[in-house]
Amino acid sequence: MIAFGGNALLRAGQKGTFPEQVENVQRTCENLVPLLEQGYHLVIGHGNGPQVGNGLLRHQAGESMHGLPAQPMDFCGAETQGSIAYLIETGMDRVLSAHGLNRRVVSLVTRVEVKADDPGFRNPTKPVGPYYPEKPAEGTFREDPKGRGWRKVVASPVPVGIQNVDLVGRLAREGYVVVTVGGGGIPVIREGGALKGVEAVIDKDLASALCANEIGADEFYILTDVPKVYINFRQPGEKALDTLTVAEARHYLADGQFAEGSMAPKVRAGILFIENGGKQCIITEAGELGNPSCGTRIIQ
Amino acid sequence: MIAFGGNALLRAGQKGTFPEQVENVQRTCENLVPLLEQGYHLVIGHGNGPQVGNGLLRHQAGESMHGLPAQPMDFCGAETQGSIAYLIETGMDRVLSAHGLNRRVVSLVTRVEVKADDPGFRNPTKPVGPYYPEKPAEGTFREDPKGRGWRKVVASPVPVGIQNVDLVGRLAREGYVVVTVGGGGIPVIREGGALKGVEAVIDKDLASALCANEIGADEFYILTDVPKVYINFRQPGEKALDTLTVAEARHYLADGQFAEGSMAPKVRAGILFIENGGKQCIITEAGELGNPSCGTRIIQ
Repeated sequence: MIAFGGNALLRAGQKGTFPEQVENVQRTCENLVPLLEQGYHLVIGHGNGPQVGNGLLRHQAGESMHGLPAQPMDFCGAETQGSIAYLIETGMDRVLSAHGLNRRVVSLVTRVEVKADDPGFRNPTKPVGPYYPEKPAEGTFREDPKGRGWRKVVASPVPVGIQNVDLVGRLAREGYVVVTVGGGGIPVIREGGALKGVEAVIDKDLASALCANEIGADEFYILTDVPKVYINFRQPGEKALDTLTVAEARHYLADGQFAEGSMAPKVRAGILFIENGGKQCIITEAGELGNPSCGTRIIQ
Repeated sequence: MIAFGGNALLRAGQKGTFPEQVENVQRTCENLVPLLEQGYHLVIGHGNGPQVGNGLLRHQAGESMHGLPAQPMDFCGAETQGSIAYLIETGMDRVLSAHGLNRRVVSLVTRVEVKADDPGFRNPTKPVGPYYPEKPAEGTFREDPKGRGWRKVVASPVPVGIQNVDLVGRLAREGYVVVTVGGGGIPVIREGGALKGVEAVIDKDLASALCANEIGADEFYILTDVPKVYINFRQPGEKALDTLTVAEARHYLADGQFAEGSMAPKVRAGILFIENGGKQCIITEAGELGNPSCGTRIIQ
């Protein structure tokens, strides 16, 4: 199981044109070649932070300019599953063809179940979408501390189930490169016997960790923009970690060594994966893949 | 194999709010219950005309208001595959649960191959997206005869291959309700060994007919807003047809009995399906499904 951020495709400092995205995704796919050449079965989970942010802005702009009703966050997340999967498939296809690798890609639209009584829903904290000059009448909004206006805040509930995850595991073992849990999955809660969408953001590393455990993956790679996990990051005494036991990881987390919204959720996802039976979680940057000593390995 | 139009979800005369779409899709799914209760293996193809039109408008509005680069049509089509699949899964889930049907839904992001030398690309005729007051510098645009401005025209090439279609057939036979070829599929052409997206619209009935043949479906249902196919439609001598042989269908097509952009492409898709080994193509409205004498049957 491999997870990478939405910013691997839509990079800060770029405008986000289609050719830029195609080039970014192709570079990311190229970095997966060493794993494919080693015969890894591969499942890809990806983020959608910048993409769903843009989607929410486009929906707001479409309503404002053309009267098209803006759709809720779960709908916008589903849109990004389609478009990002398409970009990954396009990039992967070129890379597979260039390297003569006989593998196929399949992308599943994936709902991820969260609990209706997840504590996150009582106190939503994740700001998403456009800034509004006045507080809108419906939904939970919070005023931006920098005075940019009001912004919707949603819950970030814990994923508890992944749609069709047995099929994901089966297809991966048959050799398909499977794309799933895009953006952490489309969040749904159980209502009666059926599943109903909710406006929320599921952490893509947590959703990927759950997916990795459910399919019985041995290894879980979390790609980021640094080669390893550090203690005293960008401070005196900075040290790159080669391995990290679950106990050490917990200790450093409690010590505030890993930044929230950045390395901390990745380390937590790694701990979760190991505690639920995974062998090792490797946190590294994409360009390091295939290097046997790459990244930081979280182990039991 | 069953194909329905994007307007089954986003109806003319409605604003297109999320609750409206959820209700529309649930009604459509409810209509499929008789087939599910009879134990049919079911693959769903769907259109995306109104949805991708709205998507193109949202991308234009996002560029205009927020400077977000508008993405090309293939990207917008991929977005609609995600969002419409999500709506169908939500509706299907509620219906399956309400009727105690033990079936699962899986939705695949699907690229559909067309030929780079398809004659459609030499003379694009299908108008899509927003009207522009001036002719944009890039792309093929045509001036609207009613004076609303300039509008992009794209090709409507013939589908020749469907990504992962063998998997679609396999999953359907295992009992999954499979959603695929959304919007006729994301159009791609072969360039070297890899597939590359193109701005085009693939007719969803043609793509669904190809899918139906490739998976060896016996029956291909095309849902529309009339119960049967008619000759002399809405004219003196109007007659509903119960069956239509391929020869009769060709004769009536040549005679101009079926409206272009409406019934004609459905009848052509039906002919294609039968000529490539299908048993019967049923053109009908969703509410008639399960009625043994429903619709017009195109047969050899």
